[in-house]
Amino acid sequence: MGVILKVVVKDKFYLTLHPRPAYVIGSGSYEGRMNLMAASWVMPVSEEPPRVCLALDKESYTWELIRETEEFTVNVLSEEYTDKIYYVGSRSGRDVDKVKSSGFKMVKGKVVSAPIVEDSIAVLECKLYKTIDCGDTVLVIGDVIRCEVDVKKYNPKYGWNLREVSIPLHLWGRSFTYPCRIKIVKT
Amino acid sequence: MGVILKVVVKDKFYLTLHPRPAYVIGSGSYEGRMNLMAASWVMPVSEEPPRVCLALDKESYTWELIRETEEFTVNVLSEEYTDKIYYVGSRSGRDVDKVKSSGFKMVKGKVVSAPIVEDSIAVLECKLYKTIDCGDTVLVIGDVIRCEVDVKKYNPKYGWNLREVSIPLHLWGRSFTYPCRIKIVKT
Repeated sequence: MGVILKVVVKDKFYLTLHPRPAYVIGSGSYEGRMNLMAASWVMPVSEEPPRVCLALDKESYTWELIRETEEFTVNVLSEEYTDKIYYVGSRSGRDVDKVKSSGFKMVKGKVVSAPIVEDSIAVLECKLYKTIDCGDTVLVIGDVIRCEVDVKKYNPKYGWNLREVSIPLHLWGRSFTYPCRIKIVKT
Repeated sequence: MGVILKVVVKDKFYLTLHPRPAYVIGSGSYEGRMNLMAASWVMPVSEEPPRVCLALDKESYTWELIRETEEFTVNVLSEEYTDKIYYVGSRSGRDVDKVKSSGFKMVKGKVVSAPIVEDSIAVLECKLYKTIDCGDTVLVIGDVIRCEVDVKKYNPKYGWNLREVSIPLHLWGRSFTYPCRIKIVKT
């Protein structure tokens, strides 16, 4: 894949989450137990301070690890990684070491000890802010401590350059779609 | 637009929210003060019971009305309505009566008194479940009491038939994108 040059996003971090991709959530600690899962129930909730939320199954290994470390990462990947995103979204980290078996190359977060996916085009490093019980799921809200993007594919004002990068969005189970056409509303 | 035949969704209501469209949120009461706003910070949070959440500016008129009535609707619209979605997303209901000026045809909800957009391809009628303070915004979690979709464009098992309908997703300000290609991961 070559080397991705990433820069820190100072403003409008939420553009990294538009349109809403199928993400990979990194949890645990790079030195200890780690896990990766796919998630599309993720969204920005606040610009200042920058915050995201994700809905997690209470039985998930990711939730166990986030409860323990109070950290997580949100990784945005391009179309080439669709199969791997599906892979980490379709089995539990309790049954298989997805970090090893997925083939994703991991590195340690720069400001959190949770792992990040090296080939991501954007990475949000987050610390737990609040959690809300929603029945079978828990809503996890995190402060975005650091947000980094691939400088070649992203414009700080307009977000992803969809002519340069294709981003997988989740439809159902094994099915993904990709945003293609763009329309700018005339005012 | 012709008549849209809508059916009630019994399972997997969350597929109406995949990939994550730019929604129109209906608030207030059809008989009284009403408002419409565009929102893309909306996501499913629980399947059973069906729940959604949205992040709202605390100063917004929509939040004032939801606090009052404890109800809201989430409306999914197709590409033809992109300009109108942008319109209701770019001014405040305190300054202008967007229900009138947008040209959206409104009807009363079937199980809530909040208004719904008649030409929507999906409508979620919601009652407030919980709210969470997130700083400048508030996270509003709602129970989905009723979910209805356009029967011609939606498959109860797979969600939107993107060959039949184009759904606007929000990129930034005036810019929207549309999901086109589909990939089904082989297992």
